[in-house]
Amino acid sequence: MNPKLELFSQGEEVVTGQTVDTNAAWLAQACVNLGFMITRQTAVGDKLEDLVTLLNEIAERSDCCICTGGLGPTSDDLTAQAVAQAFSLPLEFDPVAFEQIERFFLKRKRAMPEVNRKQAYLPKGAQRIDNEWGTAPGFTMRYNDCWFVFLPGVPSEMRQLFDSFVRDHLGKQFSLKPKQLVSLKTVGIGESDIQTAVASIKIPETVQLGFRAGVDHVETKLLFPHDYDQVLMTELIDAFAANIGDFVFSIDRPGHASGDLVNVVDRLMQVQKQKAVFIETLSQGLLSAKCVDCDWLIEGAYYSDIQQLAEDFDLALNDKDLLAVAIAEKIKHQKKVDLVLVQLHLSDRNTIRDKNIAVEISTALLTPHGMLQVKHMISGPAQRKQNQSAVLALDTLRRYLQLHQ
Amino acid sequence: MNPKLELFSQGEEVVTGQTVDTNAAWLAQACVNLGFMITRQTAVGDKLEDLVTLLNEIAERSDCCICTGGLGPTSDDLTAQAVAQAFSLPLEFDPVAFEQIERFFLKRKRAMPEVNRKQAYLPKGAQRIDNEWGTAPGFTMRYNDCWFVFLPGVPSEMRQLFDSFVRDHLGKQFSLKPKQLVSLKTVGIGESDIQTAVASIKIPETVQLGFRAGVDHVETKLLFPHDYDQVLMTELIDAFAANIGDFVFSIDRPGHASGDLVNVVDRLMQVQKQKAVFIETLSQGLLSAKCVDCDWLIEGAYYSDIQQLAEDFDLALNDKDLLAVAIAEKIKHQKKVDLVLVQLHLSDRNTIRDKNIAVEISTALLTPHGMLQVKHMISGPAQRKQNQSAVLALDTLRRYLQLHQ
Repeated sequence: MNPKLELFSQGEEVVTGQTVDTNAAWLAQACVNLGFMITRQTAVGDKLEDLVTLLNEIAERSDCCICTGGLGPTSDDLTAQAVAQAFSLPLEFDPVAFEQIERFFLKRKRAMPEVNRKQAYLPKGAQRIDNEWGTAPGFTMRYNDCWFVFLPGVPSEMRQLFDSFVRDHLGKQFSLKPKQLVSLKTVGIGESDIQTAVASIKIPETVQLGFRAGVDHVETKLLFPHDYDQVLMTELIDAFAANIGDFVFSIDRPGHASGDLVNVVDRLMQVQKQKAVFIETLSQGLLSAKCVDCDWLIEGAYYSDIQQLAEDFDLALNDKDLLAVAIAEKIKHQKKVDLVLVQLHLSDRNTIRDKNIAVEISTALLTPHGMLQVKHMISGPAQRKQNQSAVLALDTLRRYLQLHQ
Repeated sequence: MNPKLELFSQGEEVVTGQTVDTNAAWLAQACVNLGFMITRQTAVGDKLEDLVTLLNEIAERSDCCICTGGLGPTSDDLTAQAVAQAFSLPLEFDPVAFEQIERFFLKRKRAMPEVNRKQAYLPKGAQRIDNEWGTAPGFTMRYNDCWFVFLPGVPSEMRQLFDSFVRDHLGKQFSLKPKQLVSLKTVGIGESDIQTAVASIKIPETVQLGFRAGVDHVETKLLFPHDYDQVLMTELIDAFAANIGDFVFSIDRPGHASGDLVNVVDRLMQVQKQKAVFIETLSQGLLSAKCVDCDWLIEGAYYSDIQQLAEDFDLALNDKDLLAVAIAEKIKHQKKVDLVLVQLHLSDRNTIRDKNIAVEISTALLTPHGMLQVKHMISGPAQRKQNQSAVLALDTLRRYLQLHQ
């Protein structure tokens, strides 16, 4: 049985919904991967009494607890005080923590406000967690057979402290058997079609199958036990990849995350040293916008009116498929680029905003190996159509690049 | 004292962090606005025992609880069963609920799977909440002086049920005194500069001042008591608006939400019946992409290389400010549009990805009333620079439109 872990988020801004608590979800995933069983997530505000009650509840029922927030310098940051009261421990001044806080301000050429002195007081017996990324040190301690870890609520600081200290620290306190998560990421195929495609594969009882549909891609997840045979694991992953087919743009394994579709395309483009130009209609600039910081994208253009697009390139608008090809060839000639992607919507523009009407898009990709042309039907509200057309355009590029790598 | 309300989110996907719980934050905000005091948010997985324990805990300590999730047809959807066990009530078949579920499938021309029959069983004495947007009806009931509301976990369904039924229902059960929230939304000015600008304004003790910095804009929030004098309220808001100045793009009052900057610009463009073309560099298509479904945007283009941009328009690249103006005038002449916005980054392109180097952008807006030109310094990682340049371009347009409305 995996040890039980609870997450505890502190702050009025969380409990009143002004802030969506992304810390809890991030920590939950990280701790599931470490081998914990997450039993509860609780958020409370800044009332000392509520914090004390919750700390005592958790100490009674859980093996481990990670708490975020309430370590700041102001009067509503009460975590250390609540711990002292809940566990009957005095607060002690930690000169090393104080020096670190002073140094933080010194580096930024600012005087340390007197209120920050408070952050150097930790419950007696707690182990300090150094924080190079902000003023609030974290701390960790055992109470009543429960390991408590207290981290700052600023997400970037919390993640830095978790990665630099907490993960290893918890690994030493508990005998953990992390499960192994493999995720096949796909674009252009829905969850139910993936289920149908993999239905014939026999999955061992110890392996858990799950799906997760995001805005940009769908993940097919296989969760293997800690000690699962590596050869059998690879066989099962290969069977899934073969059945789902070339909709799979990457496979994440433990310790090997490939990022999203933009990251995959970006790496392929860099390796192959190609340059690209995009012409967009339905995606309205979002295709270019997704490729932020990608040097291989040299130009992009958005046209709301395909008639105007045809005129700009001195072409006739008879057949949109032929038009896309003709535009791509003109651009390749003018701009001397390797890859030109032209995506046109074939349906009436007025249908785009009607969430009940699907629209057809045609994507032409002119490459050194010739012209690729694919069509897709896209449905949903305008914003979803915009995003899907950008993602499918990017995926057309990905398919070409993976085929010719 | 406002009645105490807790939020309860059910589901393995939430407690293990596969899903960020946006329901809890949305409901918390909605219930704060209604006049509740939110004391806790708790998420648990799909274990019956955990659900029963939590329901009993909440019934002991809270006046109201909204629970999301666990109403689906599958074996891990256990809410009704947990309620029955926790509150010692039998589950009863509700023929009206069953008819609604059948009709849901009939409308979609699909046979109702047998598993969905389960969703028509509700705890004895519970009041059904009709769900036209999905198969799971919600329900509500009083137990031990606590009002419980159970809603589906699909965010769109949850929100529909809350808006169509729950808000009014809770209004009838409790004597609520909602506070009045006013929010001044700004672009182009940071939180600390706003604080300095409003420092001289005397704020009555009963009014709470707060700030919230989002990715696209900063909100300055004033929270007034339920019965605050309307004339005094308007005076205070006017003082804030005057001191912050024309960085304010909209003011939200109770019952009057203006949306984000794109919504504000979209309404102004529609009223003024103007058409626009955008030329982007640093924002890389994101400016066009933000204006999804806005018919007034007829074309957009992205250039990574300003030299190439100059060549495309047969212009010399001596002075980037003059270049932006010359491009805008050429486009206005060619395309016969009312508004042309050209935004160029004045710094070396290689500095964009260095988060420690700020870059300068110049935005030129050619209008029927002449040329507007503004400069901004933008800092942070590449993605933030991209977004900020798109937002500031859009805000340049907003300032012009508000001045000439």
